[in-house]
Amino acid sequence: MSDLTTAMLARGQRARNAARLLREASSETRTKALRLLANKLRHNADAILEANQVDLDQGRANGMSEALLDRLALNPARIEGIAAAVDIIADVKDPLGVETDRWTAPVNGLDIARVRTPIGVLGIIYESRPNVTADAAALCIRSGNAAILRCGSDCLQSSLAIARLIGEALSEAGLPADCVQLVDTPDRAAVGLMLSGLNGTIDLIVPRGGKSLVGRVQAEARVAVLSHLEGMNHTYVHSGADADMARAVVVNAKMRRVSVCGATETLLIDKAIAPDLLPLIAADLRAKGCELRGDSASRAIVPDMVAATLEDWSTEYLAPVLTVAVVDNIDAAIAHIEQYGSGHTEAIVTHDAEAAATFLNRVDSAIVVHNASTQYADGGEFGFGGEIGIATGRMHARGPVGAEQLTTYKYMVRGQGQTRP
Amino acid sequence: MSDLTTAMLARGQRARNAARLLREASSETRTKALRLLANKLRHNADAILEANQVDLDQGRANGMSEALLDRLALNPARIEGIAAAVDIIADVKDPLGVETDRWTAPVNGLDIARVRTPIGVLGIIYESRPNVTADAAALCIRSGNAAILRCGSDCLQSSLAIARLIGEALSEAGLPADCVQLVDTPDRAAVGLMLSGLNGTIDLIVPRGGKSLVGRVQAEARVAVLSHLEGMNHTYVHSGADADMARAVVVNAKMRRVSVCGATETLLIDKAIAPDLLPLIAADLRAKGCELRGDSASRAIVPDMVAATLEDWSTEYLAPVLTVAVVDNIDAAIAHIEQYGSGHTEAIVTHDAEAAATFLNRVDSAIVVHNASTQYADGGEFGFGGEIGIATGRMHARGPVGAEQLTTYKYMVRGQGQTRP
Repeated sequence: MSDLTTAMLARGQRARNAARLLREASSETRTKALRLLANKLRHNADAILEANQVDLDQGRANGMSEALLDRLALNPARIEGIAAAVDIIADVKDPLGVETDRWTAPVNGLDIARVRTPIGVLGIIYESRPNVTADAAALCIRSGNAAILRCGSDCLQSSLAIARLIGEALSEAGLPADCVQLVDTPDRAAVGLMLSGLNGTIDLIVPRGGKSLVGRVQAEARVAVLSHLEGMNHTYVHSGADADMARAVVVNAKMRRVSVCGATETLLIDKAIAPDLLPLIAADLRAKGCELRGDSASRAIVPDMVAATLEDWSTEYLAPVLTVAVVDNIDAAIAHIEQYGSGHTEAIVTHDAEAAATFLNRVDSAIVVHNASTQYADGGEFGFGGEIGIATGRMHARGPVGAEQLTTYKYMVRGQGQTRP
Repeated sequence: MSDLTTAMLARGQRARNAARLLREASSETRTKALRLLANKLRHNADAILEANQVDLDQGRANGMSEALLDRLALNPARIEGIAAAVDIIADVKDPLGVETDRWTAPVNGLDIARVRTPIGVLGIIYESRPNVTADAAALCIRSGNAAILRCGSDCLQSSLAIARLIGEALSEAGLPADCVQLVDTPDRAAVGLMLSGLNGTIDLIVPRGGKSLVGRVQAEARVAVLSHLEGMNHTYVHSGADADMARAVVVNAKMRRVSVCGATETLLIDKAIAPDLLPLIAADLRAKGCELRGDSASRAIVPDMVAATLEDWSTEYLAPVLTVAVVDNIDAAIAHIEQYGSGHTEAIVTHDAEAAATFLNRVDSAIVVHNASTQYADGGEFGFGGEIGIATGRMHARGPVGAEQLTTYKYMVRGQGQTRP
């Protein structure tokens, strides 16, 4: 067995042992660890920045692009942001121990309660964003899960500096420092070992990064995976929409930030209102620098659009590009979404209550929105205090994954000596 | 591409198309299909028995054991039982469309509701129990999921006869017969194709059978799996137990049916009461034909027990054999369960409320029971109206899997034109 394998299996066993103590810790103890962590991040900003400088120097020496360097770079304001995010997670209602249902079984009189518990040990694999180290640790502590974190090698020194503070915060709160472990080697074989489940000690893998990382994890993992694949999202402007609201919502849904998974990639608009409204929306979007690609009906209304290809309808651009289709009615809009969507987030803009209800009921996406921007697809906006990502699968959790979504449950059954006939 | 591959991929696509219509069908329509199915089972008992006879003749010709032949055999009473089970599932509260949570997001004023929806298409793989064909179909119809069923080849004719009635019931209720498809070939390659997910058309695989089937499915599936592995269950008799209740509960937990997954496999008993109580429990169990294997402390009290080996503590016997350990106290009992248990079902017998609370809180199994038999680990006993099995994993659902556990959810977000800053 290689040294790395031995070391990783030992990590898994330590995580499993720590998970038991973390599971039994009180809400107050876990909150205390989070408060301590937020304060330590604030008071040790210099040490974090020093470690970050080592990563940045290394990144520059390796020819890292300016965009990636910016993603990697920390400064006092960003560190304050990381600390504030931990404080917000400390304030989130504790999901553990909550009875989500309780009833008396009719057949036998047993009192049955369903109670939230941690999942166990999570393996979290991410890219070069040092803030994820603190974010992921905080969500795991809040939800009572031990974690093995594996960051991109580009941010290893920054992450190690943050992980040191996480360990101190856990210890000072009376919890094992092993509740959150950061893999301290850049050896990529560590990822493969984590995907194997480390001898049954990892219960769930959460990849947080681009499609190539998520694709590798989904293909190789031998344990459960909670992941985000793509957000091929639609905004549908129904004939009953208020024109001003539709213009504001569409521009925001596409252009507020084009690189987020909740960004709209295709606009659908009813043919009854398209001749009047589409030119206005197109002008708004172009004023913001958005390229438009349309079907023949929309190009008849806004002639200088590029013709959309078949591929465009299922392309998540994450860029200032929008595909536009004119549809006959709500049934056609829903059919288009069923055919080309990825089940992430879809919105309808309308003042027709019946159309809104039809859309919300029939569209089978994780998040269906009436009269608001698709860019609200976010755990913070949902009030979760943070998120480890947005799940695009259908099992366990869909949509934003916060502390509550990182739990499972058990049944507590209370009897008076019942035996089964 | 082989003919089988082509046929199975076409099945997957038909299931996906049917799933959309089933998802949008009303509760009343799905209930109607279930009522029609129950009636058809009753009125076509002769045709089912005729098909079953073909399976039985084939089984005998192949040298099938009497136990397996009995599992395969139907008779009028068993068919009435199958029909009655479908009626019970028709009566279960519809899980779809239920709002499990709803709140106003503090940051933006959006009204957010979490609403139960079907998972989509389930692939259900089972062995030679023809009743599963009707059971599984009924749970899928109740939960709005399309299903591709694959039965053991030994019960193919019986299952085809039942599947014909399922298709008729669906059609007469106005639903596509393709909502529930039975794979009509004994070719084992069909299982491998299902485990591949049939080109993304299967969302979840549910294996229902012994460890070798479940092990193969867990190893090979490229889609999510909800499965039962083993029930290495414990009953702990605490020093605060009522002696009569303890005797009744232990005998029932072990001996009511030794082959069910909720059967107790290890008895833990506090050393303070073992000298008086263990001889009585041992006599009760032996009177029922149970073999006892003990640790040294229990053999000091009941000398004629076989010595338990290390392997015994983690063996799911599914047979009239029980391992017995004397423990110092509740902490030792919980530590034993943590070390050897499989996280399925554990019970404590005690009149000490504090000990009961400690046990229910600290034991991390899917089902933790106070003062009742572990054999209540069953969806019917829980009031679910039926179950597709008991899940022993930690993701999506734990414990009995009924119609509600075969759902996922989506978020319905209602705004007044909000755009994200």
